[in-house]
Amino acid sequence: MELSAQTIANHLGGTVEGNPNVEISAAARIEQGKQGTLCFLANPKYEKYLYTTQASIVLINKNFELKQPVSATLIRVDDAYQAIAAMLDLLHTLKMQSKKGHSWRSKISWRAKLGKNVYVGAFAYIAKGAVIGNNVKIYPHVYVGENVHIGDNTILYSGVKIYAGCKIGANCIIHSCTVIGADGFGFVPQNDGVYKKIAQTGIVIVEDDVEIGSNTSIDRATMGATVIHRGTKIDNLVQIAHNVEIGDNTVIAAQAGIAGSAKIGKQCVIGGQVGIVGHISIADGTQIGAQSGVSKNTTENATIAGSPAIDYSKNQRNIAVYRTLPQMRDEIQILKKEIEELRMKINN
Amino acid sequence: MELSAQTIANHLGGTVEGNPNVEISAAARIEQGKQGTLCFLANPKYEKYLYTTQASIVLINKNFELKQPVSATLIRVDDAYQAIAAMLDLLHTLKMQSKKGHSWRSKISWRAKLGKNVYVGAFAYIAKGAVIGNNVKIYPHVYVGENVHIGDNTILYSGVKIYAGCKIGANCIIHSCTVIGADGFGFVPQNDGVYKKIAQTGIVIVEDDVEIGSNTSIDRATMGATVIHRGTKIDNLVQIAHNVEIGDNTVIAAQAGIAGSAKIGKQCVIGGQVGIVGHISIADGTQIGAQSGVSKNTTENATIAGSPAIDYSKNQRNIAVYRTLPQMRDEIQILKKEIEELRMKINN
Amino acid sequence: MELSAQTIANHLGGTVEGNPNVEISAAARIEQGKQGTLCFLANPKYEKYLYTTQASIVLINKNFELKQPVSATLIRVDDAYQAIAAMLDLLHTLKMQSKKGHSWRSKISWRAKLGKNVYVGAFAYIAKGAVIGNNVKIYPHVYVGENVHIGDNTILYSGVKIYAGCKIGANCIIHSCTVIGADGFGFVPQNDGVYKKIAQTGIVIVEDDVEIGSNTSIDRATMGATVIHRGTKIDNLVQIAHNVEIGDNTVIAAQAGIAGSAKIGKQCVIGGQVGIVGHISIADGTQIGAQSGVSKNTTENATIAGSPAIDYSKNQRNIAVYRTLPQMRDEIQILKKEIEELRMKINN
Repeated sequence: MELSAQTIANHLGGTVEGNPNVEISAAARIEQGKQGTLCFLANPKYEKYLYTTQASIVLINKNFELKQPVSATLIRVDDAYQAIAAMLDLLHTLKMQSKKGHSWRSKISWRAKLGKNVYVGAFAYIAKGAVIGNNVKIYPHVYVGENVHIGDNTILYSGVKIYAGCKIGANCIIHSCTVIGADGFGFVPQNDGVYKKIAQTGIVIVEDDVEIGSNTSIDRATMGATVIHRGTKIDNLVQIAHNVEIGDNTVIAAQAGIAGSAKIGKQCVIGGQVGIVGHISIADGTQIGAQSGVSKNTTENATIAGSPAIDYSKNQRNIAVYRTLPQMRDEIQILKKEIEELRMKINN
Repeated sequence: MELSAQTIANHLGGTVEGNPNVEISAAARIEQGKQGTLCFLANPKYEKYLYTTQASIVLINKNFELKQPVSATLIRVDDAYQAIAAMLDLLHTLKMQSKKGHSWRSKISWRAKLGKNVYVGAFAYIAKGAVIGNNVKIYPHVYVGENVHIGDNTILYSGVKIYAGCKIGANCIIHSCTVIGADGFGFVPQNDGVYKKIAQTGIVIVEDDVEIGSNTSIDRATMGATVIHRGTKIDNLVQIAHNVEIGDNTVIAAQAGIAGSAKIGKQCVIGGQVGIVGHISIADGTQIGAQSGVSKNTTENATIAGSPAIDYSKNQRNIAVYRTLPQMRDEIQILKKEIEELRMKINN
Repeated sequence: MELSAQTIANHLGGTVEGNPNVEISAAARIEQGKQGTLCFLANPKYEKYLYTTQASIVLINKNFELKQPVSATLIRVDDAYQAIAAMLDLLHTLKMQSKKGHSWRSKISWRAKLGKNVYVGAFAYIAKGAVIGNNVKIYPHVYVGENVHIGDNTILYSGVKIYAGCKIGANCIIHSCTVIGADGFGFVPQNDGVYKKIAQTGIVIVEDDVEIGSNTSIDRATMGATVIHRGTKIDNLVQIAHNVEIGDNTVIAAQAGIAGSAKIGKQCVIGGQVGIVGHISIADGTQIGAQSGVSKNTTENATIAGSPAIDYSKNQRNIAVYRTLPQMRDEIQILKKEIEELRMKINN
């Protein structure tokens, strides 16, 4: 499907400079723009490409002054960066509209309830008691267990697995091979060294507007619920253990891991490969540097780093001194000798 | 399905205090208990909830003294914590009994052998030569390759992939999207910088009573077998490379990684995000702190931490001193000046 | 299928010592060799097994001198290690030949184009516009999105997911549950703390001769392409974020993570659990130790380690001194006292 410059300008509240009828069907970076693509210029570093790009349309800021002639049609907007994001959204939405209907190759229990306009791809499995909202997209090879609830407009990409009883909110996006609701890792050692499983009978609740990347694992609670609150964004390959609770609008980068019963606040930012031990409390607004190991509660809006993690600036200072350790050791040896020499002098 | 207080008391060898006919269908935490749920009280910290909970039944220790009246029916047992675990098991077992039969939407090779009472869900794939024990549960989207053996009572959740030739024991549980038997990561660099693949023709052997979380990868051996011995428990997103061997009853937390040909003993505890290099030997009973990097053999029952990992107490001491590094540096500078001053005095 | 000693010798350009008609159907380690298996001896450490093995055939170096009689048939070759690798390849190729045809249980869009001799397993999904080369193997539960291209001879194991528009080269191997082309992790924080998704409209390009392990995630670019160049080998559970570019013949071990827009050179070796921050440039030939955290550009052929990563030798020296920190602290305290004593003496 194609969009004209005029259509785009109307959508963005911008103004066209050039041919309003030229059309695009995809977005591209300005340095790679070809005919039929839409680009944008926000960072002045890329200005040179504006004068050479073969893109059909370029979004630029309202007050941007051209220094050379431009062959592309321009659309002037308040903020070119926000405008391209809005256009990417629109292109995505148009693409998604083509996903509809229930494949006869899927398996949908007659005891599941599906809303209006739901897409169910081939080989998707929807168990009895499942309740699926309106406009939900369920791609091929998705597994929706017994009594799972999925809110309106949510997208489950190919291979997502949701175990029985879990609840997913509205407007969520979950990427391929992410597993929601597998058993928490709970065992009791017996006297003979054998571990006995503690049955995990809770669920996972994912609230509205949550996005979860691919190959992420979120375990069900032992009892009660593991909860991901509204608006939180979780990247790929993240581990979220049983009984964890994560507040609103928290961002968790790839390969981070959160151990059992930890409580993460709102508006936190957790870096890649971070580990958080179980049963602690991360306060609202905490920011955690990549690869940190967090073993203690944090205070609101703290910025921490290191393993074990401490205040970010202190950690930076420690690292700086750490790098001089061999010199420090040598200085100590020199001081020892100097003192010995002084002592000899005095005693003589 | 519902269970009465009397049935539960009989199952646990406990005694009912209150209405023996009240019924529950699920478990809950005592602070969240609602009608129809079973709770327990083991930790005195939660005693206050006992007097306010709306749970229908609460499990408590035999010798526990009530300080206020309680509306729930009580079941007194020797150990409330062990009793709730047993009840969670029972509830789980009853739920699992509903999984039975072979879906006509599955693909079961006529050259595979299935035991009695096997569940095969829709879109599950069982290749020729596979041998499946009694009471095995194979969920939708599971892949069982050629000549794979699965022991009695094992559960493979949706999306588990088991490559050709691998052997899984009895009473195992493997969670969604875990991959058993993909090729080990073995390549030989050629003179031109191109890497040539070493074919990986071994298998993976998982013995009885092993549980493996979701999104975990266990690679086949180059030749011979990667072996997970009896009773070992492996969490989510764990990497186990080719030719690794892991002893009985070892516990491996999420996101840990074990490189090729490492040998892990019995009864070890490996923390989250730990890395273990290839070709080393971790002795029986070794405990490894989270995020450690282990590059050397360990001795029996050692407790280690850090990256590179050393004795746990030494590592703790090093960390404590590390945090004072800027002060140490300053002290050295002060000492230098003081020595210089002394030298001047002496020389004068 | 079985291969005789003579057939193997012909294939390898080696010479038979013993019965040229004896046959094998699998490979094994020399210490585990049984009748019907092929073993090799390259490392002198294993020589003792040569005289006791029950293997039918053993590959040994041309110039190897026997110290005792051997019951197995020997095949003498220039390099026994390279020869066994070639044999494992051959056994693998013969096994793979049995995978052919399109399962009627798969879903292949009539608007997809398939080359000659393509295997499509049950429950595989190939969307419209997909273009599949010759001799490609698509195992059960694979998802190939709209307009995906797959080059000749590539193998996609069970449960691989390739999102719309991505391009996979020829002779690639991708293992189970790896996800190619899920959305990059891109969000813009709004004034109210809510994160707004930036649509990810780019693709992933995987060039020829790339192997990717299981449960790995490679995200699509925001615009343009995430690119894995020719010959690169990626292990299990690796995270490759949007807009990353990785050069030819680079090796990435398990659980490493590369953040958005980082550019990795050719012929690099990246250890397990390494983290690389976004927007940096790793020069050709860089070697990065396991668990390192890389936050800066590197220079060609650098060897680095640590978190944050620095020159490998410096890192080793720092670690060595770090381990003596408690002694260093004590020495400083002793020096303080000694200086105080000297000062007293002088002042007296």
